Amino acid sequence: MPRLVMKFGGTSVATVERIHNVARHVKREIAAGYDVAVVVSAMSGKTNELVAWCKEAARLHDMREYDAVVASGEQVTSGLLAIALQAQGVAARSWQGWQTPVLTDASHGAARIMSIEPEGIIEGFGRKETAVVAGFQGIHKPSGRITTLGRGGSDTSAVALAAAIGAERCDIYTDVDGVYTTDPRVVSKARRMDRIAFEEMLEMASLGAKVMQVRSVELALKHDMPTYVRSSFDDPDDPRPGTLICREEDIMESQVVTGVAFSRDEAQITLRRVIDKPGVAASVFMPLAEAGINVDMIVQTISDDSMTDMTFTVAASDFDRARALLEKAKGEIGFAALAGAKDVAKVSVVGVGMRSHAGVAAKGFRALAEKGVNIRAISTSEIKFSVLIDAAYTELAVRTLHTLYGLDGED
Amino acid sequence: MPRLVMKFGGTSVATVERIHNVARHVKREIAAGYDVAVVVSAMSGKTNELVAWCKEAARLHDMREYDAVVASGEQVTSGLLAIALQAQGVAARSWQGWQTPVLTDASHGAARIMSIEPEGIIEGFGRKETAVVAGFQGIHKPSGRITTLGRGGSDTSAVALAAAIGAERCDIYTDVDGVYTTDPRVVSKARRMDRIAFEEMLEMASLGAKVMQVRSVELALKHDMPTYVRSSFDDPDDPRPGTLICREEDIMESQVVTGVAFSRDEAQITLRRVIDKPGVAASVFMPLAEAGINVDMIVQTISDDSMTDMTFTVAASDFDRARALLEKAKGEIGFAALAGAKDVAKVSVVGVGMRSHAGVAAKGFRALAEKGVNIRAISTSEIKFSVLIDAAYTELAVRTLHTLYGLDGED
Repeated sequence: MPRLVMKFGGTSVATVERIHNVARHVKREIAAGYDVAVVVSAMSGKTNELVAWCKEAARLHDMREYDAVVASGEQVTSGLLAIALQAQGVAARSWQGWQTPVLTDASHGAARIMSIEPEGIIEGFGRKETAVVAGFQGIHKPSGRITTLGRGGSDTSAVALAAAIGAERCDIYTDVDGVYTTDPRVVSKARRMDRIAFEEMLEMASLGAKVMQVRSVELALKHDMPTYVRSSFDDPDDPRPGTLICREEDIMESQVVTGVAFSRDEAQITLRRVIDKPGVAASVFMPLAEAGINVDMIVQTISDDSMTDMTFTVAASDFDRARALLEKAKGEIGFAALAGAKDVAKVSVVGVGMRSHAGVAAKGFRALAEKGVNIRAISTSEIKFSVLIDAAYTELAVRTLHTLYGLDGED
Repeated sequence: MPRLVMKFGGTSVATVERIHNVARHVKREIAAGYDVAVVVSAMSGKTNELVAWCKEAARLHDMREYDAVVASGEQVTSGLLAIALQAQGVAARSWQGWQTPVLTDASHGAARIMSIEPEGIIEGFGRKETAVVAGFQGIHKPSGRITTLGRGGSDTSAVALAAAIGAERCDIYTDVDGVYTTDPRVVSKARRMDRIAFEEMLEMASLGAKVMQVRSVELALKHDMPTYVRSSFDDPDDPRPGTLICREEDIMESQVVTGVAFSRDEAQITLRRVIDKPGVAASVFMPLAEAGINVDMIVQTISDDSMTDMTFTVAASDFDRARALLEKAKGEIGFAALAGAKDVAKVSVVGVGMRSHAGVAAKGFRALAEKGVNIRAISTSEIKFSVLIDAAYTELAVRTLHTLYGLDGED
């Protein structure tokens, strides 16, 4: 029998009633002839509650204990869904991370899956038993301690499990019905895509489209696992197909531009009059890297005689820490002043077609200029370009680019 | 170093603030020179919430899944207490039932502890690491599934762990400061006992005194484990001693009567005009036993020529099921009518001194009769007697007996 992994996020399992609805989705796929492994998140809000308790217990807490506490959320959902499935006549059992087992490294709170040993689950399939796997968690075998994969880790659990059991595909059920050309709350003409290439989805996820977590898309790409994003709120007997994330080759008519992503969680830091000597970039970025702060867009301009201005962005949540670290290293780096801005946004245009079409970005810059949107920084890759702009212009820029590249659907 | 087990119930760990208070109690005992293993319950109310979800998912639910869901409550508390202890400078780690491991049989929802393998915890003591053990749970090794011990199971976890690690004693912290001669909410002159014999405590617990769970007292008796009942709400730096449950020989001046217990969770069933033939008792009680319904007090009276009336009690929660089962078997048993009453209570007088003092019960029956309390049924054992009375007379009967046997303290 072909195998299928179905993953349901927190809002899809927020109540026992919704868990019963999830069971109906699972039942449909079993009737369609699949052996199914379901991956579940914690009930909506539960993870936040557990994290808040850990923080209340101690600001700096042992991440091994944090993992033991937080992993309990998915444990609850996996048991409840197994019960709901049984009540609907489907043989099922729950699998905790340590039971499957899902083997991870020891990076508690942000562990990486090393391997999954799916023999127990596959034996269950032989007995027509559906597996309900607690997402987001695993075990570090040498220490025997529970680990969690970090926020959004349930998507990663699902894709990794799909690869481990040789699933035909992986269905990520969420509270939206697919991947859109941009956020429909900002652009009413945003369209749901039928298909999107792994590489495009990876950029969209990295750039602020929150529908799937970056690591899980990377994993789907690595294992060439066709992955659907679809809605758990559809009628279980007549659901819509959602968006298929697949290989570029499997998309018949690819467009030059696939989507427009944006993120307001950015902050800009500019170091004025940095002495432009060899190794200065390292002296700026090493302390940030050591503190786990990711630097994104970097622009360097010559201000005058052997002096340079350096502008770069960090996540807004890292802004205060980054600023403090740099001020501390001011003497060592050698700069005149630090200017920061949190009211900035990054808008990105993504499409594999950019590889073969020249001038896509230039066209975008011109359109933004015509609307009076000032570009503070630019970064590009093979299949996307991003601009940093004043946050107040976010919606205007997104709408302008969405229309420019022919993405608008019906209003 | 001597070893100590400290157990904290749900109200003692109801909030993170209270968990920090628990950590202070633990810290005091470590400072006093003990290696400590702490056993924790779920935060107050959490187990009820988890049980309610299981019931909502399916009225008849797979108890293996129920256990996976419900055991998560203690998992959370164990992690949080480990974090709180670390924050107070105490090295600590959490141990889930499957980690220790606490090995149980496969009776999911009401599993029995087969053995505990405490090597990991004892190795931790060697590193000055306090163990925080999730109570109420274990693992059925052959299946690898999580088990729970049933309600009140955390007390059993604590006493079993104390025996397994060879603890000097086991301290059960709760929301009362010890064991009382009777419920202080009913008799204001109830006194806290300094000591009570295992056998007496066993009767008190069986008869409705809710301070400790019966199985845990049985286990303390079996392993001769001195067990304190004391309050977690006392000042951690200056706590009261509580009540010591210990061997009869370790109580200097034992009284004839130690305490008066009562239970309103009783129901009376009377079968009228049962044909008094051999095997009739079996035909009445076998179907109840098979349905897991415990029968308590049994009274049989000859009504007339080869006919008998049979009266017995069951737990109030089993009343409807028992009645339905008996009505179904009416033809087979052969009785004229079934009469039931739920407005009854059982009042019991306990004391090891009854073994050597005659007439203790008779004195009690007379005192109740003088107050106009009608006795519906009587049962006795070596160290207690119980009477079944109209529920309305419960407080009067308890107060009368409490005074009669010289248990009254200061008001």
